[in-house]
Amino acid sequence: MSPSSTTFEQNLARHAATVEARLGLLLDARPRAGEIARPQRLIEAMHYGALNGGKRLRPYLVLEATRLFSGDEEAALLVGCALECLHSYSLVHDDLPAMDDDDLRRGKPTVHIAYDYATAILAGDGLLTYAFDIITSPETPLQDGAKATLVLELARAAGVGGMAGGQALDLAAETQAPDEAGIVLLQSMKTGALLRFACEAGAVIAGRGAEDRAKLRRFGEVIGRAFQLADDLLDLTADAATMGKATGKDAAKGKGTLVALKGQAWAEAELKRLVTAASDELATYGETATVLIEAARFIAYRKN
Amino acid sequence: MSPSSTTFEQNLARHAATVEARLGLLLDARPRAGEIARPQRLIEAMHYGALNGGKRLRPYLVLEATRLFSGDEEAALLVGCALECLHSYSLVHDDLPAMDDDDLRRGKPTVHIAYDYATAILAGDGLLTYAFDIITSPETPLQDGAKATLVLELARAAGVGGMAGGQALDLAAETQAPDEAGIVLLQSMKTGALLRFACEAGAVIAGRGAEDRAKLRRFGEVIGRAFQLADDLLDLTADAATMGKATGKDAAKGKGTLVALKGQAWAEAELKRLVTAASDELATYGETATVLIEAARFIAYRKN
Repeated sequence: MSPSSTTFEQNLARHAATVEARLGLLLDARPRAGEIARPQRLIEAMHYGALNGGKRLRPYLVLEATRLFSGDEEAALLVGCALECLHSYSLVHDDLPAMDDDDLRRGKPTVHIAYDYATAILAGDGLLTYAFDIITSPETPLQDGAKATLVLELARAAGVGGMAGGQALDLAAETQAPDEAGIVLLQSMKTGALLRFACEAGAVIAGRGAEDRAKLRRFGEVIGRAFQLADDLLDLTADAATMGKATGKDAAKGKGTLVALKGQAWAEAELKRLVTAASDELATYGETATVLIEAARFIAYRKN
Repeated sequence: MSPSSTTFEQNLARHAATVEARLGLLLDARPRAGEIARPQRLIEAMHYGALNGGKRLRPYLVLEATRLFSGDEEAALLVGCALECLHSYSLVHDDLPAMDDDDLRRGKPTVHIAYDYATAILAGDGLLTYAFDIITSPETPLQDGAKATLVLELARAAGVGGMAGGQALDLAAETQAPDEAGIVLLQSMKTGALLRFACEAGAVIAGRGAEDRAKLRRFGEVIGRAFQLADDLLDLTADAATMGKATGKDAAKGKGTLVALKGQAWAEAELKRLVTAASDELATYGETATVLIEAARFIAYRKN
């Protein structure tokens, strides 16, 4: 924690520790009912890929969106862990030589470097599969209806129509630069869909109806856009030491970003606009929504 | 169809056509609710990877196990399609250069040859994710409880404690040959777990209790062993043209099989024993179980 840490960042770090402790238990060597065995090297690689020092922003959003509606915190923690397994799978596969070919992730060797290529593919597969296991596990205190809804929404956010499709568009963008609409589509799929899911999941976990779900979904969409815009700004301005990964890489690959297309000043104004829009989306919830609005601000204005 | 086709094989082929027609619809370009878009190249690669002319044995088992209990056939068809998406993902990833490095699958170029390495990774990821989407889709006529159970059982059969873990053990077997117990474990995870799921799923779809589920689960375990033993025999005796893929490859890699360890005569006797055991498992269901017992016989004695 830097001296400039706000209360928000302390709160985020405290939650991250809780999520990591639970992920550590979920990714231990003990097979669960219906599993035959957990091969040591593979479960270790999954553990390594998931416990890599991230900010755990997605589980934080699940937890705080659930809290907004006084939903079950244990369920939120487990759905947050499931989402983090899924997010981790995407990082493990995106880093592979055939994809973005990154040797470092948050300053540490990526899974295919620390283990090997095949193990990294399988660790990603295992983490993706495990996300759906955790949601539907008997230990997750949710009604079957909420579990089925969460599986469906997560699968649609993560699959060909969401994150995986976004990564396909991202790879295609290396050979043919997308226009503005193409960039917006790519980013809404690649990073937006999971952040949107994280927020909407809170309403589902708390058993709320279509109206609350739609509000949280829109809030998630807006902060997804802010997240990506902030990321593109950081890719341009931050150095590798701050980010723990190679920077300036998107620009070097000729990948279009909205920042490259419309300039830094536009991006900074747009981030302010998005924070306001996110805040407006939650206006009906009054004071209770403060923590989520702070999260939106953090996402937009973060420095790493 | 060869002139020696039995009624069983005609039945299997008829079901395969139904499954493939539905898979074609499920893997079309139209995004579903909650999806943003389906990028053309990726959905095509998923379609290519799933519609590759397999026997569709797993969906057949789901359908016939459901029929044993007069469960909903539309639900069985969709769960069968989900299982086939998941099985297809495992083939797409297993064929990758970092894994088994196969250029051909059923006589056709594998996905990373027909498309590219990154697309094959993402197509596998997309197919795996889509399996859980299909099960929980509103169009699948099942209670939420059955959906949640199917997701959980499938995730545990497919993940680190099942199929993905089995593939990790299989890769490790290339450098250190496993003993008999090691081979049995590897095979029960790599191929047995999904076949077991296929059979048990029928009881879950039909809303049956623990006793029927356990019977179908054991039946599935036994035919899983028979499937693998028959596969190992075929790898030894069949030629590449019959199998549509490289044969003798496991032996060439020094991978231990039970056939290599205990001989062809033992394997043939063991297959007979397993068919009897499978049949005994379903004895209480009388005549209704004939189709499933024929499936066990086909699995044990198939020639490709």
